[in-house]
Amino acid sequence: MEGMTRREFRDLASPEEARAAIASLDITPGDTAVPLDEAVGRTLARRVDAPIDVPGFDRAAMDGYAVRASDTFGASEGNPIAFPVTGAVQAGEKPTASADAGAAVQVATGAVLPPGTNAVVPVERTVEREEGVAVTTAVAPGDSVMPRGTDVAAGDRSLGPSTRLGPRHVGLLAALGRETVPVKRRPRVAVVSTGEELVQPGESLRSEAGQIFDVNGYSIAAAVEVAGGAPVRYASGSDDLADVEAVLERAAENSELLLTSGSTSAGEVDVLPDLLEEHGEILVHGVALKPGRPLLVGRVYDTPYVGLPGYPVSALTVFRTLVATHLRSAAGLREPDGATVTAALATRVRYDGGRLRLVPVGVTGDGTGSLVAYTLSRGSGATTSLVEADGVVTMPAETNLLPAGEEVTVEQFDADDPLPSLLTVGEPDPVVSVLLDELDAPRHLALAPRDAIRWLSDGIPDVVVTALDAASSDVPDPLVTFEREWGLAVRSGDPNDITGVHDIRERDVRFVNLDADLAVRHAFDALLPTNGESDPADDIDGYEHDLPGLESAARSVADGHVDCGLALRTTAETLGLGFVSLGRQRLGLVPNPERRRKSGYKRFAAVLDERLDDLLEATYGYEP
Amino acid sequence: MEGMTRREFRDLASPEEARAAIASLDITPGDTAVPLDEAVGRTLARRVDAPIDVPGFDRAAMDGYAVRASDTFGASEGNPIAFPVTGAVQAGEKPTASADAGAAVQVATGAVLPPGTNAVVPVERTVEREEGVAVTTAVAPGDSVMPRGTDVAAGDRSLGPSTRLGPRHVGLLAALGRETVPVKRRPRVAVVSTGEELVQPGESLRSEAGQIFDVNGYSIAAAVEVAGGAPVRYASGSDDLADVEAVLERAAENSELLLTSGSTSAGEVDVLPDLLEEHGEILVHGVALKPGRPLLVGRVYDTPYVGLPGYPVSALTVFRTLVATHLRSAAGLREPDGATVTAALATRVRYDGGRLRLVPVGVTGDGTGSLVAYTLSRGSGATTSLVEADGVVTMPAETNLLPAGEEVTVEQFDADDPLPSLLTVGEPDPVVSVLLDELDAPRHLALAPRDAIRWLSDGIPDVVVTALDAASSDVPDPLVTFEREWGLAVRSGDPNDITGVHDIRERDVRFVNLDADLAVRHAFDALLPTNGESDPADDIDGYEHDLPGLESAARSVADGHVDCGLALRTTAETLGLGFVSLGRQRLGLVPNPERRRKSGYKRFAAVLDERLDDLLEATYGYEP
Repeated sequence: MEGMTRREFRDLASPEEARAAIASLDITPGDTAVPLDEAVGRTLARRVDAPIDVPGFDRAAMDGYAVRASDTFGASEGNPIAFPVTGAVQAGEKPTASADAGAAVQVATGAVLPPGTNAVVPVERTVEREEGVAVTTAVAPGDSVMPRGTDVAAGDRSLGPSTRLGPRHVGLLAALGRETVPVKRRPRVAVVSTGEELVQPGESLRSEAGQIFDVNGYSIAAAVEVAGGAPVRYASGSDDLADVEAVLERAAENSELLLTSGSTSAGEVDVLPDLLEEHGEILVHGVALKPGRPLLVGRVYDTPYVGLPGYPVSALTVFRTLVATHLRSAAGLREPDGATVTAALATRVRYDGGRLRLVPVGVTGDGTGSLVAYTLSRGSGATTSLVEADGVVTMPAETNLLPAGEEVTVEQFDADDPLPSLLTVGEPDPVVSVLLDELDAPRHLALAPRDAIRWLSDGIPDVVVTALDAASSDVPDPLVTFEREWGLAVRSGDPNDITGVHDIRERDVRFVNLDADLAVRHAFDALLPTNGESDPADDIDGYEHDLPGLESAARSVADGHVDCGLALRTTAETLGLGFVSLGRQRLGLVPNPERRRKSGYKRFAAVLDERLDDLLEATYGYEP
Repeated sequence: MEGMTRREFRDLASPEEARAAIASLDITPGDTAVPLDEAVGRTLARRVDAPIDVPGFDRAAMDGYAVRASDTFGASEGNPIAFPVTGAVQAGEKPTASADAGAAVQVATGAVLPPGTNAVVPVERTVEREEGVAVTTAVAPGDSVMPRGTDVAAGDRSLGPSTRLGPRHVGLLAALGRETVPVKRRPRVAVVSTGEELVQPGESLRSEAGQIFDVNGYSIAAAVEVAGGAPVRYASGSDDLADVEAVLERAAENSELLLTSGSTSAGEVDVLPDLLEEHGEILVHGVALKPGRPLLVGRVYDTPYVGLPGYPVSALTVFRTLVATHLRSAAGLREPDGATVTAALATRVRYDGGRLRLVPVGVTGDGTGSLVAYTLSRGSGATTSLVEADGVVTMPAETNLLPAGEEVTVEQFDADDPLPSLLTVGEPDPVVSVLLDELDAPRHLALAPRDAIRWLSDGIPDVVVTALDAASSDVPDPLVTFEREWGLAVRSGDPNDITGVHDIRERDVRFVNLDADLAVRHAFDALLPTNGESDPADDIDGYEHDLPGLESAARSVADGHVDCGLALRTTAETLGLGFVSLGRQRLGLVPNPERRRKSGYKRFAAVLDERLDDLLEATYGYEP
């Protein structure tokens, strides 16, 4: 990091050039064989011709009596013809009986037609006699018989190469007796995470040392799997050149494709471009795409390589836009029908950069059958943006502005994902969360009160969750309101004997605050001045240490980091903490009046009717 | 089988009643936990709220210098402000340096913001100095800083219950540090095959004892898997009551649902209805649906049970129509968008039965953007019908006739399966098979010459493969023709010293014939009378033993069952057999003139241009 000089990206490739460079990488895997039980969903490597006749014998197609057809000529209801019965054949047994002229053999459906017979008289057309059977109908040769090979004849072309094996194909392969099936191997894709700061989920996280959990390793591996690849994750846990080098070499060894994320910029700390230059070749470095500018395409240790951007949403978007199609094709998967929806932009989108832009958006129904698209509440660096976005809007390089109301095409990330049935924004609240659990695919975005109201006036959310205080006088009438109790979460048993605000102002206890955007903090600040004392920032230890989440402060208390913190009663109770009540605040669920006909809204209103009272009753500190 | 009395189905349930009975079976599995690496595609069992703030610290969002923002006020390009640098912080390390007023700490993107600082000046806005750094811009508090919890705040509602986990959700769970994920367990579905005659693929098949490979066990298990279930196959290999009873009891033990196929009729040999009555209960026996009449729904050994029909196409169709939706719902999968296409019926469909009928059909493009639907060449008892059909047409109980040309809606079996790009029918031929391998999803149906020509006049196939002999004078001009050599496949080394037809007529050798629908047999018969001798059926041992497939006779020779049989030279060579040439026959690929613009047809014509000559050259016994 000493020099901190920057190399500029020399020439940005166009997205088409980048895609072509990736398509030029040969990531086709060889073939393999899988047991028939595991063949569904795989792609046949070669044509399968039938090696056998199916059935392999002339087969009785009905329960009845096998006869020579000519012996039945003239038989009718009124003129039954009697046959001696020389034996019986079940399905799955070798006939021991045969029929001479004028005799019959009893057969079950599926049985081998006994020697000497060429037709079956269905049991319904026979009458049992003391010694044998009487036939009440004439049959022709071949009647109720499935001749050998009727179904499949040896040498028939059964399944062509590259057939995607569904249940029906599996059934046919079973009929041919295939125990194993030649299929295309799934391309092995190494997904390499590099970074000193990365910790794998399940390991302990030291936030104070700047550690974060590895997101891209998992999300890209999952995207690889969905695109038909076989992902293997590697993590270097270091940005050191030698460490990254060693991981890449190991990862490249058994892979058709190697993917990394981040560390591909032209900055000095980003080692990947250097490694490619030393141990492979660079085909593309930098693409005129946002996100995606630092894209790196080439080969390293003889293995095709694509370096994706580091931000999670960007990495997945670029994977999807530039890599997935090539991978699916190598895996023998069909390109899915691109699920797109048309939506009206809620707010304008501005951009001046001269790069093709893929704008992640959320989508929600407006209640009249049309859709509204909105840009994300947090940046593309945020992992929450992963699940807030439903797809991307493509904005050409030469476009600087998409005005509000513009009809745009949203390419969905995943055609299988439902669009949210209800969009709520604003204050987080545990009771609202439980209510939303009753809906299919609801979405709640935590927004500051002013942002939530602005989103409402932009026509985005269906419902805003907000505290009803002086500041909220301009919001529409809420659908329902309820009260929740807030105060100080204190350690279990309250070793500090905290009884109220005066204790944290006057005594030496470590307090932790909540973010100013949260309603509890707002209520806390409203309480303080009435005490008429000095500036709280000066006499409350930790007042300026505000945590972002409604539960963050209580969790800090539970973890032993501080003595007390702002929290809801229910959070303190849930975490097993003590609680000192400081007040109650009324929350309102404020509806977007345009959405009253939206089915998700109606369902939510019904859930409120059915569940809210009981839920308030059952939750600590809540009242209607 | 002694009595062979029949119980009639008393009252057939309507398809709706059958579906409701199945929906009443509780097949919901419990929850389980899977490693995050295996979570993609699964369904979340419960809501996941964020347990931590992400990031867990105030994070530098750019490479640069962390400062107190107020110390930069007034800085500009023309008026840089100098800062001593008290240290550096990389991503993933705990800051050891802090900054007093007027000092800066070098930070990398992702680093923890050092104590005493509240903003980052990007490196691009700084100039290195001998002792420290000069800042050329003023920054505000929070600039280029991602505050703790900006991304996810502890307590935020992150993912709702029943979220289908895609790559984006997996990424968010990774960000939260989840090592394992609570997901809905896949419903365990026991797929039980019963039948004395069933042999599992891979085992040796005794056709003479009426054995056939188990098809339904595999195809239904595959369909269960596609519908989100976890199939386990069981095979009883016996129709014996006690054996079937034992298998069912074992299969029921660890399953949410038990499926069988066949053996549910009211006939005496079908033991399942009795077993249900004894060890469970019957909710539905018999449904007014074709296929599907002997449907059995109930419980056995305390486990929900559905008995499907025995024919493979029927079993899959009924599974798909009545069971799959309930299974998918229990597995937490979304109902797929039912892929339907509209097609014109090539030939009329008649039916009088008073039951709702699901007619399996194949579909092919007519070259003008419209589709043609045709009923199957073989019955629903045929396993080939599994892959010949693309979907079903629903025919109401009160409809007796769908006329030719009728526009019908075809519900595709599998939305992921492509419709055939080219449909050829008629004579099987190894060279044509190789040519078809060059196309995406072609389909060839082996049909007798007269049937192939009839299909052509019904406007179904794109190309007919047929021998060009006296009988074929009325067919349109072929696109291409070529010759293939046919004759007698004899054992390797020809121990019987067979040199021509006279040897099999005059000497005691075991011959095996081919089906009269095959062109080689036709040519053979045409050859015989010219010898002017007695009836071949009398003096050729095995003349009447005709096998169905073009390769069947040669395979019989290879297996040692017979001494010689009718075959193509290429088949004999491929199987390592000797060959006695009896003649050459000319095949033609006869085009459907209406299809010349169809893209699959054009592709096939191009393949013929590019590949046919080389292929004829490379194949034993073929010539242009």
